Amino acid sequence: MGKKKTVQNGYKFMGRIWIEGKEGTFLGYGRVTLLERIKQCGSISEAAKSMKMSYRHAWELTDSMNRQSKSLLVETATGGKGGGGARLTEAGEKAIAAFWKLYGNFNDFLEKMEKNLKF
Amino acid sequence: MGKKKTVQNGYKFMGRIWIEGKEGTFLGYGRVTLLERIKQCGSISEAAKSMKMSYRHAWELTDSMNRQSKSLLVETATGGKGGGGARLTEAGEKAIAAFWKLYGNFNDFLEKMEKNLKF
Repeated sequence: MGKKKTVQNGYKFMGRIWIEGKEGTFLGYGRVTLLERIKQCGSISEAAKSMKMSYRHAWELTDSMNRQSKSLLVETATGGKGGGGARLTEAGEKAIAAFWKLYGNFNDFLEKMEKNLKF
Repeated sequence: MGKKKTVQNGYKFMGRIWIEGKEGTFLGYGRVTLLERIKQCGSISEAAKSMKMSYRHAWELTDSMNRQSKSLLVETATGGKGGGGARLTEAGEKAIAAFWKLYGNFNDFLEKMEKNLKF
């Protein structure tokens, strides 16, 4: 989950990246995947199910991202914590795109390193 | 420990890298620091103390690195697990240098990314 792996001479170069905000983790592989699922499903509870994650955990991750972002990433409709729909905002779209860009660059970096290093 | 941190607009770009062998982690920030301390101290037990790590844990980490390396990284003198000295081999020196090179490149990568990304 969120780890990149390449193989060289039987060794694997592994890495993980994430972005921290004022409360700790803000965006990482799992959180960004959750944002994508919320966009697809239109609901936090359906998104949670699709990731085999508890609704409570998905709700807490979403709330944590919203609290640490300058603009809301996910808007929830009436029903609040118990139900209703959820919608990814434009800021949410941008956060997803920005994270995958960083992640892609990170993968490129690991592949480049793999070619240069010998153990 | 082994994490790189930079700050942009209140967000921190974090990352971690390590190298896996056939048994799992082979080299990471903590393990490489242990190798350096063994070199400096000439003993696993003194190296462990300097890192506030138990002797048992330091011995297991050293054994894990030796088992997964093509050549021994650390040679232990008579006395074995219970005592005696420990010496970093040439392969150990090379492993340390190769890891810090990768780590330095990773830090450069994170700093470069920091400048390009906005949240």
